[in-house]
Amino acid sequence: MLVVMRHGATSAEVARVIEIVEEMGYSARPMPGAQRTAVGIVGNDGRVDASRLEALSGVAQVIHVTQPYKQVSREWRPDNTVVTIAPGVAFGGDTTPVIAGPCSVESEQQIVSAAEAVRDAGASALRGGAFKPRSSPYSFQGLGRKGLDLLALAKRETGLPIVTEAMDDDGAHQVAEVADCIQIGARNMQNYSLLKTVGRIGKPVLLKRGMAATIHDLLLSAEYILAEGNTQVILCERGVRSFDTATRNMLDLSAIPTVHLLSHLPIVADPSHGTGLRDKVGPMARAALAAGADGLLIEVHPAPDRALSDGAQSLYPEQFAALMDELRGVAAAIGREVPQHAGTARV
Amino acid sequence: MLVVMRHGATSAEVARVIEIVEEMGYSARPMPGAQRTAVGIVGNDGRVDASRLEALSGVAQVIHVTQPYKQVSREWRPDNTVVTIAPGVAFGGDTTPVIAGPCSVESEQQIVSAAEAVRDAGASALRGGAFKPRSSPYSFQGLGRKGLDLLALAKRETGLPIVTEAMDDDGAHQVAEVADCIQIGARNMQNYSLLKTVGRIGKPVLLKRGMAATIHDLLLSAEYILAEGNTQVILCERGVRSFDTATRNMLDLSAIPTVHLLSHLPIVADPSHGTGLRDKVGPMARAALAAGADGLLIEVHPAPDRALSDGAQSLYPEQFAALMDELRGVAAAIGREVPQHAGTARV
Amino acid sequence: MLVVMRHGATSAEVARVIEIVEEMGYSARPMPGAQRTAVGIVGNDGRVDASRLEALSGVAQVIHVTQPYKQVSREWRPDNTVVTIAPGVAFGGDTTPVIAGPCSVESEQQIVSAAEAVRDAGASALRGGAFKPRSSPYSFQGLGRKGLDLLALAKRETGLPIVTEAMDDDGAHQVAEVADCIQIGARNMQNYSLLKTVGRIGKPVLLKRGMAATIHDLLLSAEYILAEGNTQVILCERGVRSFDTATRNMLDLSAIPTVHLLSHLPIVADPSHGTGLRDKVGPMARAALAAGADGLLIEVHPAPDRALSDGAQSLYPEQFAALMDELRGVAAAIGREVPQHAGTARV
Amino acid sequence: MLVVMRHGATSAEVARVIEIVEEMGYSARPMPGAQRTAVGIVGNDGRVDASRLEALSGVAQVIHVTQPYKQVSREWRPDNTVVTIAPGVAFGGDTTPVIAGPCSVESEQQIVSAAEAVRDAGASALRGGAFKPRSSPYSFQGLGRKGLDLLALAKRETGLPIVTEAMDDDGAHQVAEVADCIQIGARNMQNYSLLKTVGRIGKPVLLKRGMAATIHDLLLSAEYILAEGNTQVILCERGVRSFDTATRNMLDLSAIPTVHLLSHLPIVADPSHGTGLRDKVGPMARAALAAGADGLLIEVHPAPDRALSDGAQSLYPEQFAALMDELRGVAAAIGREVPQHAGTARV
Repeated sequence: MLVVMRHGATSAEVARVIEIVEEMGYSARPMPGAQRTAVGIVGNDGRVDASRLEALSGVAQVIHVTQPYKQVSREWRPDNTVVTIAPGVAFGGDTTPVIAGPCSVESEQQIVSAAEAVRDAGASALRGGAFKPRSSPYSFQGLGRKGLDLLALAKRETGLPIVTEAMDDDGAHQVAEVADCIQIGARNMQNYSLLKTVGRIGKPVLLKRGMAATIHDLLLSAEYILAEGNTQVILCERGVRSFDTATRNMLDLSAIPTVHLLSHLPIVADPSHGTGLRDKVGPMARAALAAGADGLLIEVHPAPDRALSDGAQSLYPEQFAALMDELRGVAAAIGREVPQHAGTARV
Repeated sequence: MLVVMRHGATSAEVARVIEIVEEMGYSARPMPGAQRTAVGIVGNDGRVDASRLEALSGVAQVIHVTQPYKQVSREWRPDNTVVTIAPGVAFGGDTTPVIAGPCSVESEQQIVSAAEAVRDAGASALRGGAFKPRSSPYSFQGLGRKGLDLLALAKRETGLPIVTEAMDDDGAHQVAEVADCIQIGARNMQNYSLLKTVGRIGKPVLLKRGMAATIHDLLLSAEYILAEGNTQVILCERGVRSFDTATRNMLDLSAIPTVHLLSHLPIVADPSHGTGLRDKVGPMARAALAAGADGLLIEVHPAPDRALSDGAQSLYPEQFAALMDELRGVAAAIGREVPQHAGTARV
Repeated sequence: MLVVMRHGATSAEVARVIEIVEEMGYSARPMPGAQRTAVGIVGNDGRVDASRLEALSGVAQVIHVTQPYKQVSREWRPDNTVVTIAPGVAFGGDTTPVIAGPCSVESEQQIVSAAEAVRDAGASALRGGAFKPRSSPYSFQGLGRKGLDLLALAKRETGLPIVTEAMDDDGAHQVAEVADCIQIGARNMQNYSLLKTVGRIGKPVLLKRGMAATIHDLLLSAEYILAEGNTQVILCERGVRSFDTATRNMLDLSAIPTVHLLSHLPIVADPSHGTGLRDKVGPMARAALAAGADGLLIEVHPAPDRALSDGAQSLYPEQFAALMDELRGVAAAIGREVPQHAGTARV
Repeated sequence: MLVVMRHGATSAEVARVIEIVEEMGYSARPMPGAQRTAVGIVGNDGRVDASRLEALSGVAQVIHVTQPYKQVSREWRPDNTVVTIAPGVAFGGDTTPVIAGPCSVESEQQIVSAAEAVRDAGASALRGGAFKPRSSPYSFQGLGRKGLDLLALAKRETGLPIVTEAMDDDGAHQVAEVADCIQIGARNMQNYSLLKTVGRIGKPVLLKRGMAATIHDLLLSAEYILAEGNTQVILCERGVRSFDTATRNMLDLSAIPTVHLLSHLPIVADPSHGTGLRDKVGPMARAALAAGADGLLIEVHPAPDRALSDGAQSLYPEQFAALMDELRGVAAAIGREVPQHAGTARV
């Protein structure tokens, strides 16, 4: 960390900074410059609370050199973490599995039909929400416990592992009974109680980036899960808020190479929420794979114009099948492979 | 709601939209234009799920005319809601109370000293976090239960009502035992489980705007609380994420007149988190009052350079006292009044 | 266009809106709703000035249904515009040419060496700035006239057509003497005087999206050029400002399918400025092609660590050659082709 | 400047950084840390081109300690610059003049009537556009030369000095003949050719912040004008692009104390463009003054519902007069004064 003093800071002010740094257990290295003095902090393990130093008289700015996260960092662990949510469904290696299914579980007929369609097209896992975070209290909030039962049924019918969202501590334990991977939604990316809970449960977690979260924020939220002893975390880029309303969110694909540089955790992309519009899903799914995504999360509904939520961004099953063909081509062009789920026989 | 068809949409596509609208229980009113047809939806009470219509073939765009929130709307209730958290401490009327105190409760000495200082300067309520949402799992997370006990002690010593944050369902019940007003932080603005819980508890709630939340999002989150029967909600503008790192957040003061136009709920501003820098707190506190804020939330610490969190944005007690004088002048200039807390005697 | 009245607007207010609409030469169609009345404007050709209507008493909101641009719209011209800047170098068709070269022209040796390197790797055109818009007046501002002469020399040596930026009217005429395509930079996207000038010059124009421009803004700026009779416009996504400083800008690849839906003009992507970091250029170049970009703009410098500007985002020649191989694979996977420039012999 | 090396950078990489720094004429000071080495650059006058260093192997990040601007900095000149555009109309001192008038000059009757109204209410200067930058080429583009003549007439009639916008070099010279202060609009904030031109003309300049410009960008643009020898620059906050469409822009009032800290130049606020909505102009004008703005720019039109541009954000003359009373109260509360223009008699 570097504490930059104001132009004209007194030597007493510099001395006070040094004193506090040493009181905090680090060593201070003053560095007088042409215009202003800076004080380097040596021995900083990333846990120094900058705020205390920013508050000192004569300090202009505190600059972080060391990242505030540890266990998620590639400096901590150079090799990729590979998160396996079911046999043959691994994120972070050579394959790029596709998780597909409807926004919400609506009925037995709907979820089983969706599961069969995405399995037949080559998806590796089934998504579908039982607990739905909705902006309005008057929107459909999901089937809850019953939705989980229907997901379990769809898993038995198709062999596909399940990825589904938990919204609170109680729900996380319910979800863990059924799901192969627990999803934490964008709105809960900084719900630290929930992050600790899924950290303790120990099942794989799909952690979505918040709508205004920087990559550093996302990694810090993942650190909450790893700090509880659970290293099975898949990050997910799903679009951030922007000034342009042409799409629902702005899918930030540069997050993919950025995460790969900074962290050993895998990252997938969700072009359905990332754009909010069906005709953008295909191009952005291909782009995400080309940028190096370790997998994809795609909304598919057997009858999008009857969907209870997110119909506008859900693909028709035949659109999804055509897209899977394109995705296999793009993956091959960069030396990766979209896997076909092996366990399609009934379990 | 208005469903705008693509240029060249077929009459069958228009007919399908009309059919679905009627199936949803509303009436449809087609409106052919020079370039494209639009279909108006009459009888819409704000609860139509647009997504289903966006998914239809030939639809270019669905435009919301009616707001999706109800009970928080000024159209639902024309007169201001006045939220009284303690005798003489009311938000939404002629007075503009100031809630002040440290970011975190750190010790008995610290919180009592802070409480006395802000009371003496004219604050109406004491803030201080026992449960702290921190970006890093390695930062100070608050004293928890013990912090609540210290807040109760500070209340007994000074008579000031307490505003403090809850981060999860369990914490909300603990906080409710001690606090006069439960704060929901920016990161939890869309933690719907928590919103429902504080809705049911029924105590006044201070709901902070999320970092990338629009005013509509904020009002929808408040609607979750009102939908549980709790109308005692104070909104809080605390800055949003922006591209400029000159300040920690961008304090959006236009939120104040915007909320006053759209809703009957009071709105206060938090210039401490809104700027993150001590020297900006005074100017932005004055500006918020001048813009019509119904109160302020200001961080004050007896020794900011010893603070365990947010020291850089905390005022020294003497700075706070000087600011209170300025605030009284600004309030008077626009026909309002910064109240002095009456119950300063020990309880 | 739809004029939405406030809840409780009087019939006199509605009548006044209708009167003004008719005075403006359109017909008005009132549409009473459950909560509020709306007035549709029929015959609107996209040129109605909404501001006049927004100002009327009782009006809550004016909603645009028709787009404000015309000639750039795919509704105006359904087939793709193909912009050919030199024989065999066409944007908007089946091929996806790559424009490459250094940020700035620095010397004869540098620009010729860069031109040879990018030609040998398969680029179709040479980029290089003679006039440089720099945030600081103290940064290198380009070689100006002399830079243009060096570009002309590099063209003679390699046969590559030239794309270079103009910053003002006088410069645009100078650039037009040498360049095959005139670039308008992001900072000048709304410099309407300059847009009109390049519209009149009539040479192909590469128009970069401004840092906070919506797709609609970008299309409106292109409309300025088309309105002068010049239809040879290539749009360019080069990243927008965001709250995350992990990359220099946020490359918005969803702009590509959005532009393809709304307009017949081709769109290319600039992953160099779009990320600002060399290690992100490859992944994002591949992603842009996979999303459907009609070409790419990539910075390559013979010696990036000696570059006078943008060294951090410039590829080494060997990195560029390797990337071109990957790009050919990605293009093939989606049925397109990265062309090899034919005219590599000296002219 | 501080060059932070990657974790595990080799000593050869560190040596290469030191070599380049010294080659650039500065001295390098390596600072080994617990996790990574940093290299401080001493003697840096703010003009080091970071890009060259970012490009070096083993470099993780280059951190700027010294600001890249000079003459606009308060470190360069500690005392406020006071910009006087006419006798008694000074920005940056104790008074806070109000510049008011219509968006566009439309006719003799309109501009003279507006000028008389704002003068009578206490404005110190008249604004009104003759050259109008409009997003659409089909919107009213201003009266041009004739508009300037009408402004000159309004000045003769009322004695008010004139502030009006220039959009290009040729226009700047025309504007300079009539205006007391040349406005550079938000869209041209980084039109460096135009900035140099108004720098050379030497008349006072009102420089508006671009829609996605950081405060640093704004100061760097001002530096372009000062670098030409013109120190008479008034900065203007007019709102930035944000994700919330509740207002046209997000007026960033924290820009005011931020500029006051970093620069000696005065800064005014434009709540009309900053909000785009008439009912927000009053609250945000009061807030800007309370935050310390050195003046205001407010749109007033004699008949807003007949305005050719920006009618929705223009005040009625009687609203403006009432607002001026409020502004005088707010200014007084913080020890400043809204001046009354002295020269109201015909000149």
